[in-house]
Amino acid sequence: MRAPPRSVELTQVTEWDDGNFRSLQDSLAAEEPLEIRVGGVPLTVTMRTPGHDLELAAGFLLTEGIVESAGQIAGLSQAPANGNGRSNSVEVELKDSSFDSQDLTRNFFAASSCGICGKASIDAVRRRGLLQPNRDFRVDPELLCGLPETLRSEQAVFDRTGGLHAAALFDGNGNLMVIREDIGRHNAVDKVVGWALLGGHLPLDRHILLVSGRGGFEIVQKALAAGIPILASVSAPSGLAVKLARELGLTLIGFLRGRRFVVYAGEFRCLAQARPEAQSAIRPLTDLPVTRI
Amino acid sequence: MRAPPRSVELTQVTEWDDGNFRSLQDSLAAEEPLEIRVGGVPLTVTMRTPGHDLELAAGFLLTEGIVESAGQIAGLSQAPANGNGRSNSVEVELKDSSFDSQDLTRNFFAASSCGICGKASIDAVRRRGLLQPNRDFRVDPELLCGLPETLRSEQAVFDRTGGLHAAALFDGNGNLMVIREDIGRHNAVDKVVGWALLGGHLPLDRHILLVSGRGGFEIVQKALAAGIPILASVSAPSGLAVKLARELGLTLIGFLRGRRFVVYAGEFRCLAQARPEAQSAIRPLTDLPVTRI
Repeated sequence: MRAPPRSVELTQVTEWDDGNFRSLQDSLAAEEPLEIRVGGVPLTVTMRTPGHDLELAAGFLLTEGIVESAGQIAGLSQAPANGNGRSNSVEVELKDSSFDSQDLTRNFFAASSCGICGKASIDAVRRRGLLQPNRDFRVDPELLCGLPETLRSEQAVFDRTGGLHAAALFDGNGNLMVIREDIGRHNAVDKVVGWALLGGHLPLDRHILLVSGRGGFEIVQKALAAGIPILASVSAPSGLAVKLARELGLTLIGFLRGRRFVVYAGEFRCLAQARPEAQSAIRPLTDLPVTRI
Repeated sequence: MRAPPRSVELTQVTEWDDGNFRSLQDSLAAEEPLEIRVGGVPLTVTMRTPGHDLELAAGFLLTEGIVESAGQIAGLSQAPANGNGRSNSVEVELKDSSFDSQDLTRNFFAASSCGICGKASIDAVRRRGLLQPNRDFRVDPELLCGLPETLRSEQAVFDRTGGLHAAALFDGNGNLMVIREDIGRHNAVDKVVGWALLGGHLPLDRHILLVSGRGGFEIVQKALAAGIPILASVSAPSGLAVKLARELGLTLIGFLRGRRFVVYAGEFRCLAQARPEAQSAIRPLTDLPVTRI
């Protein structure tokens, strides 16, 4: 469960503390580009923290809609190391060789005739045929409250460097399945999803994804692509993230801190334990407007 | 200085607080795609918080090395609004019409013969001909300590939504020149730089850029492209950000909180007020290794 040592770098720094300078050793989160190639053609370059690169590539393929199952991946391998003794390239072979790397962009632009807008972005996600995540999955609010502490206690690299985002996958009983850290928020999620894809843990239809950073549109999209019913964050989501979660039926939780959280979408998955009078007092969130002021 | 109202959205949410559910209104940071077109051709789409879109586009052009001065921009305009009454597209006309939108990617891949690695990423920045920022600019550590409080007190949208990154530009006396907020860290920096470019405030060679989030490679790259000598963050930088800052002579400061900060590169710009014995005790950071462990 620990991040591998190569995710951390050491260097000498200068500290200023209330008027006094001194030299000390400091740990830094490693950041290096990773190129993902499909059929020998470069698909993307992402700045990531080295480690779990195959998971990152596999997760990216799934969450960006290039594959839907591990069976569509014929080969996945780290390219030979370069002069520095490190490899920053992953080679993917797909069973369906008709994959066109322009599809990602084209899909976005073709989604709507009304031009570039949040609605078109949501339409583009819809066009990928993503289904509403498991409606029957329920979770106890008390269980949710315990997840950030688990995430924090397992965040190996963060404690040393203070510079990483984390994503963690929990089962329906609140058991931690995997945690991944990365300088990039999206990469941490892709590593978690890739871990599940390569390990045969799909579908993730009775699972909770917890992220340490903000819950933006792309994180919601990745959770939906993985079929995860509940996405929780210790911070705030964006307006477009809320709209997408409501339209596609994801439970989106923010500000999960201590014994409080805010439900932005899909509240039915956490209301089961509430008293009946509380349930009837809660206005259903689906289809509620998100209004520009 | 205030962010415009359209950066915020309102919606109904459900709060769970220590066992009790209730409905309430919540503010969200707006997130919408913005397309930047150059000479009619789409260059990039970024998910951003609406507002200051022309600044964002102008800043992006400068920090990504597409232009070096405002004089190279012949036209910059928001495209007509779409069906929702909003425009999410900026049209740019360059004086030099030979611009090739493939250059960004090609520059990265062509930078080094050793393959994809952090070194190649740094070489790609070098190849853009970026100079070391002003070596003669000095800053008092006491002045640095006051900047986060100014940032915080001016962060209009963050206070309401909790979901935004901020970037702020200060002059050499610690006076706030501009602050911009965005769901994307890079966008906040581009809006600040674009403000300076369009307002005739370049060069920024006696200025400090303060960012609310982590200081990664791309933020350092953008600061260097704008010629800013000091980049400070309340959080941690990555290993590659430190390497780039040391190689190109930027002063990189992290963990700027209360009366303490850590200098990762370019310490000479903050040592002027230190006692001579302290100065000689500080090991120069330039060329110090950043070691993978």
